[in-house]
Amino acid sequence: MTLDAIVNNETFAQFRKLSVQRTENVLGTLLPPAHILPARLHDAMRYSTLGGGKRIRPLLVYATGACLGVPLEHLDRPAAALEMIHAYSLVHDDLPAMDNDDLRRGQPTCHRAYDEATAILVGDALQAQAFQVLAEPGWGVTAEWQVQMLATLAQASGSRGMVGGQAIDLAAVGHELALPALEQMHLHKTGMLIRCAIQLALCAAGIGEKESKGAALLRYADRVGLAFQVQDDILDEIGDLQQTGKARQGADRSRHKPSFVTLLGLVEAQNYARRLLDEALEALQSWQTEADHLRALARLIVERNK
Amino acid sequence: MTLDAIVNNETFAQFRKLSVQRTENVLGTLLPPAHILPARLHDAMRYSTLGGGKRIRPLLVYATGACLGVPLEHLDRPAAALEMIHAYSLVHDDLPAMDNDDLRRGQPTCHRAYDEATAILVGDALQAQAFQVLAEPGWGVTAEWQVQMLATLAQASGSRGMVGGQAIDLAAVGHELALPALEQMHLHKTGMLIRCAIQLALCAAGIGEKESKGAALLRYADRVGLAFQVQDDILDEIGDLQQTGKARQGADRSRHKPSFVTLLGLVEAQNYARRLLDEALEALQSWQTEADHLRALARLIVERNK
Repeated sequence: MTLDAIVNNETFAQFRKLSVQRTENVLGTLLPPAHILPARLHDAMRYSTLGGGKRIRPLLVYATGACLGVPLEHLDRPAAALEMIHAYSLVHDDLPAMDNDDLRRGQPTCHRAYDEATAILVGDALQAQAFQVLAEPGWGVTAEWQVQMLATLAQASGSRGMVGGQAIDLAAVGHELALPALEQMHLHKTGMLIRCAIQLALCAAGIGEKESKGAALLRYADRVGLAFQVQDDILDEIGDLQQTGKARQGADRSRHKPSFVTLLGLVEAQNYARRLLDEALEALQSWQTEADHLRALARLIVERNK
Repeated sequence: MTLDAIVNNETFAQFRKLSVQRTENVLGTLLPPAHILPARLHDAMRYSTLGGGKRIRPLLVYATGACLGVPLEHLDRPAAALEMIHAYSLVHDDLPAMDNDDLRRGQPTCHRAYDEATAILVGDALQAQAFQVLAEPGWGVTAEWQVQMLATLAQASGSRGMVGGQAIDLAAVGHELALPALEQMHLHKTGMLIRCAIQLALCAAGIGEKESKGAALLRYADRVGLAFQVQDDILDEIGDLQQTGKARQGADRSRHKPSFVTLLGLVEAQNYARRLLDEALEALQSWQTEADHLRALARLIVERNK
């Protein structure tokens, strides 16, 4: 590793820390205060959203925005909206009728900390809040780009996006999936929301998806999204309980969920993640140092241990 | 009743029929086709949205639009978006952890016809679809008014709107509520979505809520919204099973849900509904015949038997 890379990595560590802090602050401001009625619902919404987490999606928004020279204030609401959608999906995924998880990041899941009915409503309200955060007036983006952001977020999170991926996932439990089908599932379940992070930053920059910069960043997004899931499967296999905060090592495998590790084997899955990383970096080749955070972020996703 | 009123009522019956048909068609077009993957999810979304229903909210959108001279094509997406939100809320309300209902309009509820996990996802996907329907480009409303519609729908359906009302409702089961608290609950749970119908039609007409026309129509909306709920409580008490499609007469009362009937008694609740109707009609006094559908609709809400 060259000195340049080390220096850049240090800068990225700082950038990442600031991005996480900023995300927490923005979420704290944009979520309804816990003292406002219905207080228990608002309390549970904050519990489910502010309880830590990697904040990868907001980080992608901020890093893409930084690469394109977008002011931070134009990225705050897209970052928060995405994270609210992500948080709602976790609350609903954890429900007894879905994954039936008791722990999330080492803490009781929403339906364990509160109750099942509240957890359903928390997810519903967080989704509405995400769209509200983008639709409110006066945060510096034109109405045209706001509408574009809203359409993109709705598509990425709906039945042909994240929720659709979850439905495919449920249907696949106990079935063997071929690699294309598994990729298709993940493209929807996690990939489209990661892609959405880049799309929202492009909207904030006023750049269309068909412009060369836009297309290159979306290539990056797709590789990173898939690499994220491959690494998730690897961590589910080898990750340590304390790091991942999941109740059981190999939990997904033991529920016969299809995964890149069961399909490819551990070593091949690791090679695949590495190849996706290379392709993600290649997509950024027309940028200089301004894309360094995006490069470091791609590496982080593949090299993380939780 | 004068001949004029009879003629107007006949016209309204026609208008209502056309509005219901149009709503069905528009929903059928704007929901993802059942053959597109994930097929089971899309099938369940259509089952939960196209399975009949009074279509009161779309009717309010169309009747308000007609009163203001808005082209029908500018009302289709607001009407459909509102109905998708309403449909998602019914699917989630029926879940075992919430009201645990097996029947809705005489048919198996979504989680009975499919399964609980699918019903959770159906609600989530319908909510996203509602926002997508408003956010997509090219249906004739400016981006500024589109954003305003999206903000309004998000607020009306979120934690300080419909979902918040549901949370207050859950917390109130088994408790005695005073009239102001009961009204507050219903204002959120059903009132804000009914108000939203009028707000969306105002946006489509390019009329602000503070303009005198806008303010008068919102006064109408608030009375009608409350009257709707009072009549619901009356029907829960006296309604006939075949008409309401509910599994049990007095179902809400038997679960000790607070209601206008338990609080006021049946006769006083009926008087109250009548008074709200009068106030709703009064709000429309500066309009001539162009508001006749809105007048008939207010009467329909108070005089319906299902």
